[in-house]
Amino acid sequence: MSEQPKNAIIVGAGLVGSLWAVYLSKAGYKVRIYESRRDLRKTDISAGKSINLALSVRGWKAFKNVGVEKEVEKIAIPMYGRTMHDTEGNLTYQPYGKEGEAIYSVSRAGINCTMMDIAEKYGDAEIFYNEQCIDADLDKGIVHLKNRETGVESTVEADLVFGCDGAFSSVRYNAMQKTNLFNFSQQFIEDGYKEILLPANPDGSYKLDINTLHIWPRGRFMLIALPNEDGSFTCTLFMPHKGEQSFEHLKTEEEVDKFFKEVFPDFDALMPEVEDYWDQHPLSSLCIMRCYPWTIGKFALLGDSAHATVPFYGQGMNSGFEDCTVMWELMQQHRDPNVPCSEDWPTIFEKYQQQRKPDGDAIQDLSLHNYYVMRDYVADPEFLLQKKFEGRVSQLYPERYIPLYSQVSFSHIRYSEALRKGMEQDKRVKELMKEHDFTKRFEDGTIDELIHEVIDHLIVE
Amino acid sequence: MSEQPKNAIIVGAGLVGSLWAVYLSKAGYKVRIYESRRDLRKTDISAGKSINLALSVRGWKAFKNVGVEKEVEKIAIPMYGRTMHDTEGNLTYQPYGKEGEAIYSVSRAGINCTMMDIAEKYGDAEIFYNEQCIDADLDKGIVHLKNRETGVESTVEADLVFGCDGAFSSVRYNAMQKTNLFNFSQQFIEDGYKEILLPANPDGSYKLDINTLHIWPRGRFMLIALPNEDGSFTCTLFMPHKGEQSFEHLKTEEEVDKFFKEVFPDFDALMPEVEDYWDQHPLSSLCIMRCYPWTIGKFALLGDSAHATVPFYGQGMNSGFEDCTVMWELMQQHRDPNVPCSEDWPTIFEKYQQQRKPDGDAIQDLSLHNYYVMRDYVADPEFLLQKKFEGRVSQLYPERYIPLYSQVSFSHIRYSEALRKGMEQDKRVKELMKEHDFTKRFEDGTIDELIHEVIDHLIVE
Repeated sequence: MSEQPKNAIIVGAGLVGSLWAVYLSKAGYKVRIYESRRDLRKTDISAGKSINLALSVRGWKAFKNVGVEKEVEKIAIPMYGRTMHDTEGNLTYQPYGKEGEAIYSVSRAGINCTMMDIAEKYGDAEIFYNEQCIDADLDKGIVHLKNRETGVESTVEADLVFGCDGAFSSVRYNAMQKTNLFNFSQQFIEDGYKEILLPANPDGSYKLDINTLHIWPRGRFMLIALPNEDGSFTCTLFMPHKGEQSFEHLKTEEEVDKFFKEVFPDFDALMPEVEDYWDQHPLSSLCIMRCYPWTIGKFALLGDSAHATVPFYGQGMNSGFEDCTVMWELMQQHRDPNVPCSEDWPTIFEKYQQQRKPDGDAIQDLSLHNYYVMRDYVADPEFLLQKKFEGRVSQLYPERYIPLYSQVSFSHIRYSEALRKGMEQDKRVKELMKEHDFTKRFEDGTIDELIHEVIDHLIVE
Repeated sequence: MSEQPKNAIIVGAGLVGSLWAVYLSKAGYKVRIYESRRDLRKTDISAGKSINLALSVRGWKAFKNVGVEKEVEKIAIPMYGRTMHDTEGNLTYQPYGKEGEAIYSVSRAGINCTMMDIAEKYGDAEIFYNEQCIDADLDKGIVHLKNRETGVESTVEADLVFGCDGAFSSVRYNAMQKTNLFNFSQQFIEDGYKEILLPANPDGSYKLDINTLHIWPRGRFMLIALPNEDGSFTCTLFMPHKGEQSFEHLKTEEEVDKFFKEVFPDFDALMPEVEDYWDQHPLSSLCIMRCYPWTIGKFALLGDSAHATVPFYGQGMNSGFEDCTVMWELMQQHRDPNVPCSEDWPTIFEKYQQQRKPDGDAIQDLSLHNYYVMRDYVADPEFLLQKKFEGRVSQLYPERYIPLYSQVSFSHIRYSEALRKGMEQDKRVKELMKEHDFTKRFEDGTIDELIHEVIDHLIVE
């Protein structure tokens, strides 16, 4: 038993790689992390391509498994619902879940630095920077590296290698993708995004309500704003790259100024000089990456490298963290608990990818679906009425009926299950809306009666 | 006008790259070709992963455009139809098109060598071997190369660069795929293939009819055989990699022997020692590659690098050659005919990809569709009756009604048009088959009457 694997390499010191180091370390493995960028904590790297991230229960669970949740709580701001802003400046609020349920805003730079601290403090991991994976021998556990500063090439080897190097994963591009029978697709959506920082008031206070995610839905495009700890909001405009209403037509300061005044007047009032800051952040693209297998030889992909998605369900990071939970649970099942590092990795890898791939696909489908919801329906009275109805059903039957958004954001139900059930629930509620006047039922107080009548039909098994 | 581009680089001395060199050379460009393999003509490279190829009118047209068809005619064997072999050894023959219409069997090694000869003789191209493209600067027309024998890296530059380097294109993998907004997918199908060479008789004669493509369709798998010049046939077994009836269960000589005796008895009688040759060729995989854009900066993809498909319509090579025709026709439209090398390449590239991408997608869809046809329906009496009916319609109305297979294999109709029309025709004929007894109509001689009655409905505009 002394020949058991004890060394692990993680490619990428991002969110998932940093957390996974803690898991491996706690299981007895010696962990080295190779990161292609510089140490984010020591250099002022622009957070240009960062959308704020929304942490939800799947992420928290992955932290709690290894006892690091306290470190992240320090930098997270709860958001209990969405606040929609219409063109008149009217606000509509919609809670995300039941009372007390929230998703948590974290800045990408903030959580990235925190996670690296955690990897070093709790994971005892050594992180090597500027080391780009240029090739790999998947069966032997060998990674070929090239230092981006010195140009020096080197080779490192371990019993296990985890590719946690993001949507544009070098492990996947430079090694896995070139193997036989490896299926892969990268599909950019027609929309891009641009970040705008809405600063705090001079006294440090917030310019908008803090504990909510703000949305300015405008059909083919939308603006969102998530709170930061320092009183500012990170705002993101999503719209098509090309076409009639698109970033193509937002090139000059005049165009930007006119656009914000016309379509986001209340935002413009908070930040009349928005056009001056337009070029501070680049125009970025959004891509869905699908691949299979997720494991080959001694290598496994976790997080975005396996299933990068568009950000519209706020689950990209959470799904990556949940990969850690899934792999860890499989580790418990396939080892001798009395022998450190006795995990049966071939079995774990195979079960991991078979079990988790449908969930990776599902969160991508859900993310695309929610894009249309946020863009097109979130301000629609019919949609809001449906959500109100579903909220009431869930209040009356909290154990039996969970709305789709809550399944994804406030439960640990598999994404593939949530997708299947959620779509079927949606269909059944819509059918019910055709037969019954929900507005009237809410007004005359007979909505609960209706719900008790139809509840069995609404439950999707 | 003396500043016009005059240099072109082609990456890949395969079929399309070699032919494209002739086009460019005739238009006045100085052409260099960089090929990652050794010179096929000087080394004995196993034709292991080669299926024989079927040349049809789209390919011939591309040769005729630049007057090189005579060179290829020397190595091509016409096949006028398919001969189906059932498990009892019974044969059914089905012509591919009208009398005299044929597709032409060429061996991959044979045509590859011929095409390189053509590139040098007619295209005045210089071919550099063992030069692997490892990176590129798409906007500047720079290709970074690494010699696979010496390891020496170098950089070459041209006004135009064409990536004709096949399904696993280095230009696409190592440069294009890493650019923003580049969509890409590689999808392996669940079937693989293995080649078997059925030798000639001792006196050099053929063991099967020569001017036909032989198929042993067996539902979930099939064997095909195409004639070679030397009396042999190149045979290919297509079947799933894994599962009940799959290559997994054809590992030992006993398994192979038993399998051929049971399911291909007439083939086994011709080659009773088939199991001895089983391991002469590797088990290969089949993949569909889709991407967009096909052109970036000074680079364009032609052939498999842009739209590799599975081989079941025999159009992979033909569609690549047709890319040359399309690009060449656009060159005629966007140049000053009195000035050599005056082509407006940005316009040509944009029109090329916009026009040709739907056809690349369509031939991939058609190839997959024909896989099911060849595997599942080619021996089905209903299918054969439908083909017989369509053949008769096309005899009576040759100008108005062209069966799908003929549109693809014997016409220059765009693949996307053929796909659309063919699917609609198929639907309409199937509807007609439900209402009328074709067998009886053929027997009592009233089939023509029926055709005249319904012809207007059968024509898809």
